[in-house]
Parts: sequence; C-alpha cells; structure tokens
Amino acid sequence: MKSFIDYPSDSHFPIQNLPYGVFSRDGSDERRIGCAIGDQVLDLSELEKRKQLSSSYFQSGSLNQFMAAGKSEWQRIRVEIQDLLCNTELELYCNRVLRDRVLIPQSGVRMHLPAEIGDYTDFYSSRQHATNVGMMFRDPANALLPNWLHIPVGYHGRASSVVVSGTPLRRPNGQTKADDANAPRFGPCRLLDFELEMGFFVGPGNELGKPLSTAEAADHIFGLVLVNDWSARDIQKWEYVPLGPFLAKNLATSVSPWVVPLAALEPFKIDGPKQNDPEPLPYLRYNGQWTYDVHLEVGLKPANSDTATTIARSNYKYMYWNMVQQLTHHSITGCNLRPGDLLASGTISGETPDSYGSMLELAWRGTKPLQLDNGEFRKFLLDGDSVIMTGWAQGDGYRIGFGEVEGTVLPAFELSNDK
Amino acid sequence: MKSFIDYPSDSHFPIQNLPYGVFSRDGSDERRIGCAIGDQVLDLSELEKRKQLSSSYFQSGSLNQFMAAGKSEWQRIRVEIQDLLCNTELELYCNRVLRDRVLIPQSGVRMHLPAEIGDYTDFYSSRQHATNVGMMFRDPANALLPNWLHIPVGYHGRASSVVVSGTPLRRPNGQTKADDANAPRFGPCRLLDFELEMGFFVGPGNELGKPLSTAEAADHIFGLVLVNDWSARDIQKWEYVPLGPFLAKNLATSVSPWVVPLAALEPFKIDGPKQNDPEPLPYLRYNGQWTYDVHLEVGLKPANSDTATTIARSNYKYMYWNMVQQLTHHSITGCNLRPGDLLASGTISGETPDSYGSMLELAWRGTKPLQLDNGEFRKFLLDGDSVIMTGWAQGDGYRIGFGEVEGTVLPAFELSNDK
Repeated sequence: MKSFIDYPSDSHFPIQNLPYGVFSRDGSDERRIGCAIGDQVLDLSELEKRKQLSSSYFQSGSLNQFMAAGKSEWQRIRVEIQDLLCNTELELYCNRVLRDRVLIPQSGVRMHLPAEIGDYTDFYSSRQHATNVGMMFRDPANALLPNWLHIPVGYHGRASSVVVSGTPLRRPNGQTKADDANAPRFGPCRLLDFELEMGFFVGPGNELGKPLSTAEAADHIFGLVLVNDWSARDIQKWEYVPLGPFLAKNLATSVSPWVVPLAALEPFKIDGPKQNDPEPLPYLRYNGQWTYDVHLEVGLKPANSDTATTIARSNYKYMYWNMVQQLTHHSITGCNLRPGDLLASGTISGETPDSYGSMLELAWRGTKPLQLDNGEFRKFLLDGDSVIMTGWAQGDGYRIGFGEVEGTVLPAFELSNDK
Repeated sequence: MKSFIDYPSDSHFPIQNLPYGVFSRDGSDERRIGCAIGDQVLDLSELEKRKQLSSSYFQSGSLNQFMAAGKSEWQRIRVEIQDLLCNTELELYCNRVLRDRVLIPQSGVRMHLPAEIGDYTDFYSSRQHATNVGMMFRDPANALLPNWLHIPVGYHGRASSVVVSGTPLRRPNGQTKADDANAPRFGPCRLLDFELEMGFFVGPGNELGKPLSTAEAADHIFGLVLVNDWSARDIQKWEYVPLGPFLAKNLATSVSPWVVPLAALEPFKIDGPKQNDPEPLPYLRYNGQWTYDVHLEVGLKPANSDTATTIARSNYKYMYWNMVQQLTHHSITGCNLRPGDLLASGTISGETPDSYGSMLELAWRGTKPLQLDNGEFRKFLLDGDSVIMTGWAQGDGYRIGFGEVEGTVLPAFELSNDK
C-alpha cells in the first residue's frame, strides 16, 4: 500500500495509520473531522459532503457518531480512505482543486478534543507503578495491595477537564498537610506531576444492567490516544482517604488529538504478562492478544529552553491488565458505557528506573532529582515547564505514531485575600 | 399568591414551588420541558413556542440551556410562570383550548432525566454518616478521618448511570472477598444498599483554571433533587482501597424528576452547624445561610406488598458542609463545572438511629435487622424491594415538595458459564 502523499519513513502518520481527529481551519471556529496523513490533514467532513466517501458520520464536529457505528463500519471507511489516498485513478488524485481543498497542512489547523467525553475513567494497571507507589507510601515489603492482582483497579475521573494537547495547565491551589503539621494549609500545589498514560475511546456502548464479556469488549474499542493525567501529589496525599483522588486529578487531563484506530495497531500485538499467580476470576479471562508494543517517551522542556530532555522511555506493553479486561470489569456491575467514553491505563512504568511514568517515581519522591540537558534539576514540575509525551509502534520501514500530547505549567491562579 | 389550579395543602407542587422537569406525553418520544403545579404539568415548551413565555430555553429536551442562563433569567421566568398560573386576565386562564393543550395530568406523562449530566460528583458531607461508617469499618474511638472536618470530601461518580425515578435497578454482579477467605469470589452482590441524598444541578459553569469563591458559588446553583446513590457494600469493601468506590457505585444512581429551584427553598434557610472546631480554611468560609430544613423519608416496599414501610426519617439540615462549600471546594484546583453537572450531598444521616440514611447504618451492618410492616426483616435489600424516597419543606399551609425517587431491585443479570 503506497500513498501518493509523500512523507518520511519516521512519520507518525503513514498510510498504515490514518488516525482520526477534530480540527478547525485557521481563522474558523467550525469543527471538522479529519484524518492525518504525513504532515497533512485529510478533511473527511468535506469529502463526505462531496460524496467522495460513502459515510454519514463526519458532519457533527466530534467523532462520537463514528465511534458508535461499530467495527464493520470503521473497517469499511478505513478501506475507502486508504483507497482515496493511494488510487491514482480516483478524483482526489486527479482533481487538483479538490485535492487542495481537502488536504491541508497540519501546521495550519487547530486541533480539538476528538470526542465529547461522557465519562472518563482512569485505571491503575501497571504493576511496576502500583508497586513503586506502594513502596513509597505504604509498606515496601507488601507494596501491592491485596486486591491489585484480582481487580483492574480504577476510579471515575473528571470528564469536563479533559483537554486537548497544547492547552496550558494552571498550577492548582489546594489543601495540603505536612506530616508534622497540626492543620492543613492552603496554597499552590508544590508537588505537581505528570502521569504517562494511554487511553482508549469506547465505540458502541452497552445498555445499563447488561455487562460485556471480554469477547464482546473487543468490539467496543475504537482507538487510542496518549494521555497525561496531571496530578497534584501533595493535595492527593491529604484528600484521598477514603474516597480516592478528587481535586488532585480534576485540574486537567491532557490527550493527544489523533485517535489511532485499533486496526492500525494490529501488527503490534504481543503476548501479555503471565496472569497465573493468581489467575484472574473467569469473567476477566480473555482470548487472543491484547497487549501492544508501543514505545513511549516523556520530554521535559523548561521555560526559556528550546529543547526538551527525554526523562522517561516506557512502553504500553508494561500493562498488567489490558483494555478488554478493563472494559469488561468496568461494565460487570451493569454500568453502561457510551460511545466516546475515555478509559485511561493509569501511569505506565517499566521495570527500570528510566522507564517510570511519573516524576514521583523518576525522582523517587524527590530523593533523586533529575538533571535536565540545560543543567537544571527537577524533583517535580516548575512553572513554565512543558511536558511532551510521544509514542509510536515501530513497523518495518514505517511507524504507527500517536503524535504528541503537550502541556505547559502556568503559575497558580491568585486568589483574592477574602478567600 | 393564589393559582387558579386547585390542589390540596399537602401537595408537593404548589404555586410557591414550580419545579422544572423533562417529560413526554403518553405515546410520544418527544422530550418537552415542563413545570409541576398541583397534580398537573405545565408544558413550557409549548407555551414558549406560542409566545406565552418570553423565554428561549425550552425547545431542547433538557434543562441545560436554562440552567446556563443564570439567576436573573431564572427569576424572570419564574415570575412569568407564576403570573400565568395566577392571573385570570391572561390567555392561559381565559382560553380553554390553550389550557387543555398545555396543562396535562402528571399521571399521563413519562418523566425523563432533567438534564444531560456532564459530570456527577458525590460528596460525603453528613458528619453522622461519616462517623457511623468510621465506627463500623475503622476505629470507633477515631471514627472521623483526620481530613473530614477540613475538606468537603467527595469523589467523581459515574454520569452515564444516573437514571430517573422509576428505572429498575439490576442487582450487580462483582468481586467480593470474605475476611477469612484467601481469594475473592464472583457473583451477585449480597449487601445491596440505598443512600438517601440530595443533589443540586450546577447553573452557569466556570472556566477551567478559574476557581469560584463561596460568594460566587451561590449564583451557580440551579436547584435540587432527591438522590438515591445505590451502593454494593460488599463490592465496595474489596475494591475501594486506595482509589475509592468504583463498581460499587457505578451500577446506578437514581434522581427524582422535578428540580426544585433554589428560589422556592428561600423561606426554609436556617443556620448551619457550627464550624469552629476546627474552623475551615478561609476559602471555605461563607456568608449567609446555606442550610435548608427539608424533611426526608425513606420507604421500603417488598415485592408483593402494597404498602411501603417508612424506615428512615432524616433532614437535609443534617449536613456539615453546605452546597456553596461543596461547589467552591470542587472548583478550587481550577476544575471547570458545567451547566447540568450534578453534585450530590452524600448519605444524609441524623443523630438518632431512625434518621440514618442507609440500610448499612439503619440495620447497623446487619446486626439490627429492620422489621417491615408486613412482618419481614431486612438487613440489606432483597430482589423485588422498592425503595421510595420523598422529601418536603413544610411552610405555613403549603409544602415545597420534591416528589419522590423510586427504584425496584431486579435479580442479578445471569452471566453465561464462560464468564
């Protein structure tokens, strides 16, 4: 398969990828649906309107309708788009005016959230991450909590504050309490962190009261994005017992704009971790491969620096619980999931210290500050820091890339004295 | 103020109330916005279309647009509706055909969720409830956790499974683990419970990164409903450390269909609990009265019984943290709230055992089974049980009522053997 669009072999968006996103053209607020190819966007809303695509999903400004359409429709449209971009006998190739109209440089568009996210759920599915946190905050000898190997532990996150890459993040204010203090204090978070995650969008939903099996769940996954689950560690520590993280996480969650369809990741399936000690309960057992080899990197760019230092290299394959297990578990009490719901993995940490997916772990609770390329050190994030996550699956001569998710830390909102 | 519509003095919906809801007429799927008056519904969508109301909020099938409009608009429209229902010189009174068209018996309509709920948050703001739970599951001598008197503790709930009164509830399946068992088991929940709560809908939202003060929060509250936050106690116990309740709560949350506007509750404001030991941090201090005297009742009606036994009598005034404190706290890290977001109080328990707001507390973890009027006993809910919550503020010769929120427990979904 060869497109008439040129791109280098390390492009994140070759013809094998074709991720979906929502964009607006420069100077316009109108949201359109597109597909990334090389360094360009293919305007699917326009193609659909001109009957160059046999779809009816791309006029709404979000991908929810297409997500709801289901696997066979995703496959059918994907084949049509591939054909449009490869077949030199079709109008898109032959008609220069049309081509200029529907192929736009990515540098000239503004990206938006790909979907209206009804509910956002965050899991906690990397064993190394859960172990690291347990070692730091609980008992190093019994770092994993008793339920962790039985349950894909997760919690309900905040949907309203999921934002697209490029949205700046305000350092949050909140309550924190030092271990030796009698009372909490109020002020800007001092232990601001990122969490390297991936997330998937739900395709067709399930009815309230009707759980999914792992076999069924497989058809309910639309595609994946990179996720940065910003976390205020000091706020979390004081608030999270007994009902879990709340303000520490609701300040913002950033996602990459291009949703990579599951079909594009098919060649990168590998065997998952052994789950035999203990074996999961029957409802969580699955057939096939649901672990993906996706290389992940975190860069940190300080204010007034031109370059980011790569501070972590991880991989999506370091997940203990996979997507179909997460989705099945989520629905097992009868909870209904809807098209466009976002389910994130939780921090993805590998086994070596340079593969940990958060500042908390990389700098080991501030005891091992990270040195950046410009000589500065970091225990947690400072104002002006940009966090840039990227990821790709490496094929033979091509990459299925996720682009990036970026966010820059702004100083805390100044509250007036009467607060 | 006297309406030309007749109703008895204990009607929940006198002219002083005028709660908003979404309904469809018998046999139709079209969602319309209405207002309850006595035992009738006033069709606001129709009145607006006929220019009998100077509004432009009621054509959409949910109250979100009206919620977003803000306090002065709410007040203006409320006055217009009161006038329509009282003034015998206006067309609604004089024109019999119009009246028959826009006033419909409540018994002839189907109610829907009042709003599209972007995010649902549940607090934990009754001191007695938090104390009871702490006594049962943690240390009776230190029942309240250290953060409880400093923080309006809350967690993100599941928006997709918020359902309107009358929606049956399937007993959930899930993982539970007995204290003396080595491993968890899977099957139907055995400790199914209700939680008596109230919830409020957010009016205008706030921008991401821009927190609200308690003074500002006051203008962001649209109105209130009754909430039953169904809970699977045995599932919760095994799953909730460290990230909080997840499956135990996402099975369903039921709300009453009529949203009582804050204005209707104005006469029932009373002083709140003393908050001086400790005093809250400055951002949580507030002016004015934000505690409301609303009588609440829980009825339990077993299958094959015609009558419900009133098993709890509580009051919304038993809240330690009030709505403006909850809303301000929710936003303080910069989290954006949107019109139609639902913020629930948490279980409302009074000081006496007959005023506790959950089966867990009423039957004290199963040690004091409740006897129903038909002679049966209950520790937790059985299949076929209906839980009916109601509530009202008692005025001089009238009631500001909330109607009711009802839900009946259906048997668990039967999972096939391969799960």
